Amino acid sequence: MRWMRFEIDGNISYGIVDGDAVKAVDGNPFEGYQETGKRHAISDVKLLIPVVPKTFYAAGLNYVAHVEEQARLHGREINLPKKADVGYRANNALIAHGETIILPKDVTEKVEYEAELVVVIGKKAKNITEAEALDYVLGYTIGNDLSERSWQKEDRTLWRAKNTDTFSPMGPWIDTDAKLKDMETIVSVNGEEKIRFETNKMLYSVEHYMSTISRYIEIQPGDVLWMGTEGDSPNLKHGDVVEIEITGIGTLSNPIVKKN
Amino acid sequence: MRWMRFEIDGNISYGIVDGDAVKAVDGNPFEGYQETGKRHAISDVKLLIPVVPKTFYAAGLNYVAHVEEQARLHGREINLPKKADVGYRANNALIAHGETIILPKDVTEKVEYEAELVVVIGKKAKNITEAEALDYVLGYTIGNDLSERSWQKEDRTLWRAKNTDTFSPMGPWIDTDAKLKDMETIVSVNGEEKIRFETNKMLYSVEHYMSTISRYIEIQPGDVLWMGTEGDSPNLKHGDVVEIEITGIGTLSNPIVKKN
Repeated sequence: MRWMRFEIDGNISYGIVDGDAVKAVDGNPFEGYQETGKRHAISDVKLLIPVVPKTFYAAGLNYVAHVEEQARLHGREINLPKKADVGYRANNALIAHGETIILPKDVTEKVEYEAELVVVIGKKAKNITEAEALDYVLGYTIGNDLSERSWQKEDRTLWRAKNTDTFSPMGPWIDTDAKLKDMETIVSVNGEEKIRFETNKMLYSVEHYMSTISRYIEIQPGDVLWMGTEGDSPNLKHGDVVEIEITGIGTLSNPIVKKN
Repeated sequence: MRWMRFEIDGNISYGIVDGDAVKAVDGNPFEGYQETGKRHAISDVKLLIPVVPKTFYAAGLNYVAHVEEQARLHGREINLPKKADVGYRANNALIAHGETIILPKDVTEKVEYEAELVVVIGKKAKNITEAEALDYVLGYTIGNDLSERSWQKEDRTLWRAKNTDTFSPMGPWIDTDAKLKDMETIVSVNGEEKIRFETNKMLYSVEHYMSTISRYIEIQPGDVLWMGTEGDSPNLKHGDVVEIEITGIGTLSNPIVKKN
């Protein structure tokens, strides 16, 4: 099943994707729903981010080649994370599939994508084991953790580098059937493939992150956990379109515009 | 004016503090409201956090003696921040005035308070100057940025050290009349005063942080900005009660319980 969140005629609701259409529901996938009987062509509705997260967790450094690349970029030694220490991102930066990534006029040329699997939590979880973790997942979507690497290097925190408005595209929908082991992440810029990796080949697994977090924090329905990215990115510029596909989920596509 | 958020008979609403009572309103201080005519004794209602933040910003290192103390603790050189780089905290950790701070059983003895002024944003703000920043503030409340210093030192991020459930008491209400220049922060543990400092004697001012953030991010009504803390804290333990007063706002008080 695929859950979309959308707007039509000024009303926001959830719906279930059915081919090229969406079947509207009252309620939501977290607390319960029923179909309204209304059906819209997806091309007639405005897609929204599939959930407004209660808490927006980000796994950060979680793939080997990406850690090596970041160490080189920042002139540090390569240190693979010794533990699953999660970070946070800010809701202000979230935009939906198809919306425009707007680069402030003072960005440098070092703007990069980070293609990430996004875990959407379905049920409250406290002190869960790795074996049971996936029972608490509603489904998966896709995130692009846009990063301005000069700011990432200069600033004490990631606030500008990763949380500038529009820097966190997420979507297009939540897929509840996709399986971690079958996923492959493919990133294209302007239709040209740039990288392809096994999504689940992480340093610390989804299950491990969830179990670890839940020792100290009750994870909530609607929380999202971005799982980090692999490899490197070319510099992105005005006019580019970034597409991130994860097999079994779909494709998140966003154009880039730089402000004058 | 003082804005409370509270629950009575299972209903959550905002209200205006009037002596020992609260006058309930329909709506909220951000989008508009009208008084309902209902009035409750404050002792009869359950206080809630005064706002569920859209984005929860934290200024971090923003007072001289605190920066020095943290440098000593982590064995680093003293480096005053060269810029106003904001960080983030997570909503899961928020609790209201009077609610219990729960320490997980594996905390070390190094649990400390951080007494912070909290700025509550009232209006959307993008590209604002320092001179106009305070026009976008609804009012002020108080935050306690509880910190487990061993975890802060060990982990790659602050997720456990500062965002464990119940580690971010905030309240008791939002005061819209308090003036930055008149504020003094006083922290007591079990009734004994531990520190007192001029709240507004910051490295980077409220106005400067807001102006800086707004260059990259449209600040939203309901966002909160925690302004950092001064000095040091004794180790806190099971049974302690931490009270943070900021003159002109009120007092945030929370007991501490350690899990067995």
